[in-house]
Amino acid sequence: MRMYDLIHKKRNNQQLTDEEIKFMINNYVNGGIPDYQMSAMLMAIYFNGMNDREISTMTNVMAQSGDMVDLSSIEGIKVDKHSTGGVGDKTTLIIAPVVAYYGVKVAKMSGRGLGHTGGTVDKMEAIPGLKTNFSQEEFFNIVNKTGISVIGQSGNLAPADKKLYALRDVTATVESIPLIAASIMSKKLAAGSDCILLDVKTGSGAFMKTLDDSIALAQKMVTIGENCGRKTVALITDMDIPLGNNIGNSLEIKEVIETLKGNGPKDLTEICIKLAGNMLYLADKGTIEQCENLAKEAIEKGYALNKLIEIVEAQGGDIQYIKNPEKFEKSKYSLDVILEDNIDGYISGMDTEGLGIASTMLGAGRETKDDNIDFSAGIILNKKVGDKVKKGDILCTLYTNDKNKLESARKKVISSIFTDKNKPKDIPLVFARVEKSKIEKF
Amino acid sequence: MRMYDLIHKKRNNQQLTDEEIKFMINNYVNGGIPDYQMSAMLMAIYFNGMNDREISTMTNVMAQSGDMVDLSSIEGIKVDKHSTGGVGDKTTLIIAPVVAYYGVKVAKMSGRGLGHTGGTVDKMEAIPGLKTNFSQEEFFNIVNKTGISVIGQSGNLAPADKKLYALRDVTATVESIPLIAASIMSKKLAAGSDCILLDVKTGSGAFMKTLDDSIALAQKMVTIGENCGRKTVALITDMDIPLGNNIGNSLEIKEVIETLKGNGPKDLTEICIKLAGNMLYLADKGTIEQCENLAKEAIEKGYALNKLIEIVEAQGGDIQYIKNPEKFEKSKYSLDVILEDNIDGYISGMDTEGLGIASTMLGAGRETKDDNIDFSAGIILNKKVGDKVKKGDILCTLYTNDKNKLESARKKVISSIFTDKNKPKDIPLVFARVEKSKIEKF
Repeated sequence: MRMYDLIHKKRNNQQLTDEEIKFMINNYVNGGIPDYQMSAMLMAIYFNGMNDREISTMTNVMAQSGDMVDLSSIEGIKVDKHSTGGVGDKTTLIIAPVVAYYGVKVAKMSGRGLGHTGGTVDKMEAIPGLKTNFSQEEFFNIVNKTGISVIGQSGNLAPADKKLYALRDVTATVESIPLIAASIMSKKLAAGSDCILLDVKTGSGAFMKTLDDSIALAQKMVTIGENCGRKTVALITDMDIPLGNNIGNSLEIKEVIETLKGNGPKDLTEICIKLAGNMLYLADKGTIEQCENLAKEAIEKGYALNKLIEIVEAQGGDIQYIKNPEKFEKSKYSLDVILEDNIDGYISGMDTEGLGIASTMLGAGRETKDDNIDFSAGIILNKKVGDKVKKGDILCTLYTNDKNKLESARKKVISSIFTDKNKPKDIPLVFARVEKSKIEKF
Repeated sequence: MRMYDLIHKKRNNQQLTDEEIKFMINNYVNGGIPDYQMSAMLMAIYFNGMNDREISTMTNVMAQSGDMVDLSSIEGIKVDKHSTGGVGDKTTLIIAPVVAYYGVKVAKMSGRGLGHTGGTVDKMEAIPGLKTNFSQEEFFNIVNKTGISVIGQSGNLAPADKKLYALRDVTATVESIPLIAASIMSKKLAAGSDCILLDVKTGSGAFMKTLDDSIALAQKMVTIGENCGRKTVALITDMDIPLGNNIGNSLEIKEVIETLKGNGPKDLTEICIKLAGNMLYLADKGTIEQCENLAKEAIEKGYALNKLIEIVEAQGGDIQYIKNPEKFEKSKYSLDVILEDNIDGYISGMDTEGLGIASTMLGAGRETKDDNIDFSAGIILNKKVGDKVKKGDILCTLYTNDKNKLESARKKVISSIFTDKNKPKDIPLVFARVEKSKIEKF
């Protein structure tokens, strides 16, 4: 078998056999196939795509290129959740306690934030004392005891994806639905859960700019999951709105706590009920409607907040911070961002990526892998899309320990919030839901 | 400027600017752009193509990546001729003396044969004493004196093409019209002639399998030539027929001599008159019809044969071999290939690539760059497409100095000649002619 012939086949829009896909991925990982052949193949896939069998096989081979986490020593149904990246996305920390309360297991290995999106592990580490590096045994013990644990990704999960992603990143072959689907799902398969909930972001700042593309990506991922024996559901959600009002690590933890107390922002609460409802549905806890009601109840009655306290304690965190969020250290500097345009109208849209970049500027994220995070830095939005605004209103407040960053972050924020004299149309938080052979648009 | 952005642009079917093309080619040649980015670009070009401006710019930059031969010290109009590769193609050695007789200058640097196609320089070296390695000064002197010289390619012509071709060859990006056109024309531009005649082969064994593709390639090359200040014409000719009856170096020289005596095979004579006529036309010697008549006359009256003798003498060859071709050493072994099928019909087609491979097996060509050539080895066809044949007829005779090669070559020849009980349709030798903004189909 020669890589040349496989490139030629794919270039001519023919299907690769399972054997050919195994040969290609395994030899690329072990160095037998050079980057310059793989990049030509990736570009050919960009143009000619892959069918469901090809993608499922490729994803499986990529998953098996490294460690396959064996969660069988954890009792019950294990459900994983993946988001294709959002700004201010703290949903995992809200929905995991909700579903864990109902006995669904969440054994989640999560990445750190890089660039404009924050990482769940970073947010958790904003809680003093809380650890996110555990041995596999400790990790499983915490999940068996509390129903949930979120730790930093360790081990060698899907190294084929790591190597392929690095190549795609420099050869303009990232934006390919089959390649995105295989990349995400290979890591999810390797992570070992029985069921997978996918939160596929759509909008100007996301990989997928249109609803149709987002649905196509979701369908591919659901197909891969089901073909590989994992029950999989995807929700298509709005990238063009930051979730909740707070962006930045300890600011987001505070908002998580408020939301679990039932006092969270409406958009964040609503999306968390949808996500948690779908995770409960995947774990066979009832119909979608029943499951969403269960999720609501766990929040309203404080069950999920108690579960969060359990987890924080199990991972070594100081639970006094959860019980009394005022304890979180505040940043030294803050600045209100004022609307200076002479307008009497509405917030018509937000560039969430721009807000994420502003938050990173303030110290809340990493620009390079080795940067330290300022846990107290970030942004609290005072106005969101659809809110009435006029000149002089406070749009948001910036928080940082580095005074020099305030002005550049302010400028970035100003250029990321759009106003109009007309009220924008209401946009649903969830645009669509994709399940095996079923698509619902909302 | 970043190569990533250029790949992204071409992938999205946008045009590259002249500056971007210069950046890309020059940095690829000097190692600043890695193979894995260039191969992704080549695949994107395979799918999205390039417009005439992009191709012309790329070809020019590729030409200027190495030596640009300056033929200005040669008086008169210099005309070059390029064939996209053929089996038994000895036309250069017939038409160059024809046009040189009329004062058109041919200063040709020619490649050696590799694989199934022979090289003009190898054929010339079958003439005892004849040299093909001269200094540039000696080369120009011969052209100024005799009107023509054909030497082996030396110097550093279009190194960008060499590097790109090697990459295309392993990434399944050879068969792209803009890339083929740029590759061929970059070398022609660097070689310095004022006018270029292109012989574009079409058919099963050629790069371009269909007439439409061949015309498209010819149009691109003519456009590049004209955009770069070279008068350019292309003829689309039949790849599926070996030119003349002889394949192999000294066998082909003998056929060249017979043809210049007016006793050559009809197909070879006819195509040479067309090619020579077009070269004379490029050099402003009259209308196509007038120029073809000039070419005929130079052959009929022996002028071109005398010119060949002049050139052979100027390059140090023994002219007694031209005057008396019986002097050429014969191979030790020969074998008649007999038609064994029980048929009474016609030769319906030939796999010219197969015949070229058989000839190489017999010793007439190189399988690797370092192989030695057996000048007397080759094939003389006794039957050609359209000839009547029946069981027991001699199809051709094989010649070699290595007896062990006869049987495998015979098998290859047998599988490369097709018969049918019906006479095949007559096919023109020249399918089409492409000139600046003019296409004629025949």
